[in-house]
Amino acid sequence: MVNRNPPLTAADMVLPAAHLPVGSYAMAVKADGLMFLSGHGSFEASTPTHIGKLGATLTTEEGIEAARAVALGLLATIVDQTGDLSRVAQVIKLVVFVNSTPDFTEQHRVANGATDLLIEVLGSAGRCSRSAVGVASLPLGFAVEIEAVVRLV
Amino acid sequence: MVNRNPPLTAADMVLPAAHLPVGSYAMAVKADGLMFLSGHGSFEASTPTHIGKLGATLTTEEGIEAARAVALGLLATIVDQTGDLSRVAQVIKLVVFVNSTPDFTEQHRVANGATDLLIEVLGSAGRCSRSAVGVASLPLGFAVEIEAVVRLV
Amino acid sequence: MVNRNPPLTAADMVLPAAHLPVGSYAMAVKADGLMFLSGHGSFEASTPTHIGKLGATLTTEEGIEAARAVALGLLATIVDQTGDLSRVAQVIKLVVFVNSTPDFTEQHRVANGATDLLIEVLGSAGRCSRSAVGVASLPLGFAVEIEAVVRLV
Repeated sequence: MVNRNPPLTAADMVLPAAHLPVGSYAMAVKADGLMFLSGHGSFEASTPTHIGKLGATLTTEEGIEAARAVALGLLATIVDQTGDLSRVAQVIKLVVFVNSTPDFTEQHRVANGATDLLIEVLGSAGRCSRSAVGVASLPLGFAVEIEAVVRLV
Repeated sequence: MVNRNPPLTAADMVLPAAHLPVGSYAMAVKADGLMFLSGHGSFEASTPTHIGKLGATLTTEEGIEAARAVALGLLATIVDQTGDLSRVAQVIKLVVFVNSTPDFTEQHRVANGATDLLIEVLGSAGRCSRSAVGVASLPLGFAVEIEAVVRLV
Repeated sequence: MVNRNPPLTAADMVLPAAHLPVGSYAMAVKADGLMFLSGHGSFEASTPTHIGKLGATLTTEEGIEAARAVALGLLATIVDQTGDLSRVAQVIKLVVFVNSTPDFTEQHRVANGATDLLIEVLGSAGRCSRSAVGVASLPLGFAVEIEAVVRLV
């Protein structure tokens, strides 16, 4: 068994194709050493996946899966923009928007689906700051939308 | 026909008066070369405009108009703070908060009202990263609130 | 009467214990001179406080108290991470997520509970840019969640 740090590389994972914008914007914009990534939804072969609302049509476990899928999409965008995950010095910040009913209160558990994946892939460079909030609704009916700030080497 | 890049300047547009804070904060704060702009609503002569909720009292087209109005207010704040839009090197990031019912799913179309305007005015410097989410409600009943990060020259 | 600038120091206040993460993330991550703080809720001795929804179970005044409690937690994290509030050159940005019914429209008044406290404690270094929005629900049922970007000396 090999001890890896970071434990995974892009080559170990099946990343989805990089998300295309669904409007007049860019998926990521750099400012000095930081890259600001747009809010990402979950797509598979250009088709939206993980549609629904936590507290109504989706369980917390399904929300966790949705957040993990979105995080894979964020990694795909980073690879698309920089060529390689090795350019990531540190994930600085995520905002995890969870499509929620007014009484759903486990957004932090849903968000772990994204941050667990980032730590699994990037090691300590994936341990970021994070907000997790419940929103009324999301574009295309996504269960989870996530934006990110990443520091590049 | 003259090819302009950026296609418009502040002088070509009727910008609203710069938005005043509605509480104990500043409309924009700089950090190194970045300017962080507060969440802006839509005002005309200090009166809130574009009040309502997408999916209930407003159509998507009306939401697009609201987002465009808010983007004009962001430009007004930039001019107020820096004197001129020529100081904008790049709009880095918008978060577009859309006052939405639980089943409205066109926040990305609403947000185009803002990003189309920024690209129209600033050219490629207006093509930013972006999140668009549906929130339960907004201050003063605004249909759209937008915050921004801008890189200055 | 002594004129103080900043008017208070950490020693003058009873700050809560620094908030622990409620998932796989860090409470704050630095990038160059900026510190990005995670979304904070309100805790007292590790127990969540200020639970409820504006427009339903809580009044605006109670929301203001909640926002003040969260801001004390943000200061506690800054002290925990840097040793002292004197490292704060400027609070750059807050996003104040207010747990709201669809018709509550005083998120800006609720957010003043946080920004008034920061200005009281830090003087002009506490006058930040800010967004205040109404979200459908929050982790653990918090009334208010706040994230921050702070510039350090």
